Amino acid sequence: MQVGKVDFNIEAIGFDADDTLWENETLFYDAQKEINQILKNYNDDFNQELLKIEKQNLEHYGYGVKGFILSLIETSIKLSNKKIDNEIVGQILNLGKKMLSEPVKVLPHVKSSLEFLSKKYNLILITKGDLKDQEKKINRSKLSKFFKHIEIVSEKNESAYMRILDKHNINPKKFLMVGNSLKSDILPVTKIGGRGIYIPFQLTWEFEKIDADHKIKNYVQLENTSQIKLWIEKNL
Amino acid sequence: MQVGKVDFNIEAIGFDADDTLWENETLFYDAQKEINQILKNYNDDFNQELLKIEKQNLEHYGYGVKGFILSLIETSIKLSNKKIDNEIVGQILNLGKKMLSEPVKVLPHVKSSLEFLSKKYNLILITKGDLKDQEKKINRSKLSKFFKHIEIVSEKNESAYMRILDKHNINPKKFLMVGNSLKSDILPVTKIGGRGIYIPFQLTWEFEKIDADHKIKNYVQLENTSQIKLWIEKNL
Repeated sequence: MQVGKVDFNIEAIGFDADDTLWENETLFYDAQKEINQILKNYNDDFNQELLKIEKQNLEHYGYGVKGFILSLIETSIKLSNKKIDNEIVGQILNLGKKMLSEPVKVLPHVKSSLEFLSKKYNLILITKGDLKDQEKKINRSKLSKFFKHIEIVSEKNESAYMRILDKHNINPKKFLMVGNSLKSDILPVTKIGGRGIYIPFQLTWEFEKIDADHKIKNYVQLENTSQIKLWIEKNL
Repeated sequence: MQVGKVDFNIEAIGFDADDTLWENETLFYDAQKEINQILKNYNDDFNQELLKIEKQNLEHYGYGVKGFILSLIETSIKLSNKKIDNEIVGQILNLGKKMLSEPVKVLPHVKSSLEFLSKKYNLILITKGDLKDQEKKINRSKLSKFFKHIEIVSEKNESAYMRILDKHNINPKKFLMVGNSLKSDILPVTKIGGRGIYIPFQLTWEFEKIDADHKIKNYVQLENTSQIKLWIEKNL
């Protein structure tokens, strides 16, 4: 898994945002727990059914809180056989608004790591989800000053990364991407010739999990962002 | 209202998308009509209450279909005194999915106008709303090839335009913006020194209306995009 010491001049370092720079999945996890509590009568298959409906709705809603809330309402109606109380639907709507106005919890080491790395490298924030929600979080995090470019995309796949690197004139072979999702942050970047630093978060959304048979090369796993500096100095 | 013949070399022309390049407000209008029909028992203040709730929710949801649907559900619950049928909430959810998968109706003259103008000028598409939905519409419209840059933003105000022009190294004084909203497309652009071509659409969303006492300079009103070419030749 370790990237060998090779000639690799970094032109830019990309950073994922949700669960890499700040907590995010915990919000969804807590919301789901709260809903499970509210809906304890229909609760048996709830999480499984929700996941199924979220997956079906992804092409319509994309990623983010608003789509999650719409899927939550749909799941509640379905599993209650259309008997869910309006009161509960109202609670789900309020839960969404709460999620969208929650303060941003920047993860430990992030600020000082970005501060250091931004002096030496061009940093790009690359995140997916609801535009307005992501912008709000970026503002609240007070981290935007460390980034030369900020890119909010609807999907993080090979073509999205190619488009971004192309736009900023960055050679993919000289691009390093840091993130908590092997599927969205690491795999597509390594496929276009870049390298990845995988920093797992305590929770991973089902959709971000990938099959173990994906053999990903050119990435390394670290514990937190404070280790990036040392890793670069040692390995690149 | 007419812009005088002055020395004005255009560096780029911006185009709004919804209701400038393709129909959009009609979707919301038709959806609201359908909902009014479904909710005819609670219907009296429905549109007014919906507007109020949409306005309150704008800071959470931003623009776009998903926020509209969430606000529709909230309004229905409120006006029915929490007695709305699950069946109807389900219908509202389906309406949203229908809106999000609707084919894009490009407006008359748009394709040929863009084809012509893109040969002579750098065109930038500048639109606000849900990221995924806007991207889908851009793809379906098959118009993206005419644009040098595509910018999807959460709000079209002076600072958003400044940021975009700055990014692409365009002098605001040499920027012309085409759109159907005085509030979002014309006013902020003229305030930063640019010029506007206002092409009204048959419907205007309440939020896009501005007070008559806004004195906007440096813009002209045309009937459709085919008149842009002639207007530029005659006036600039």
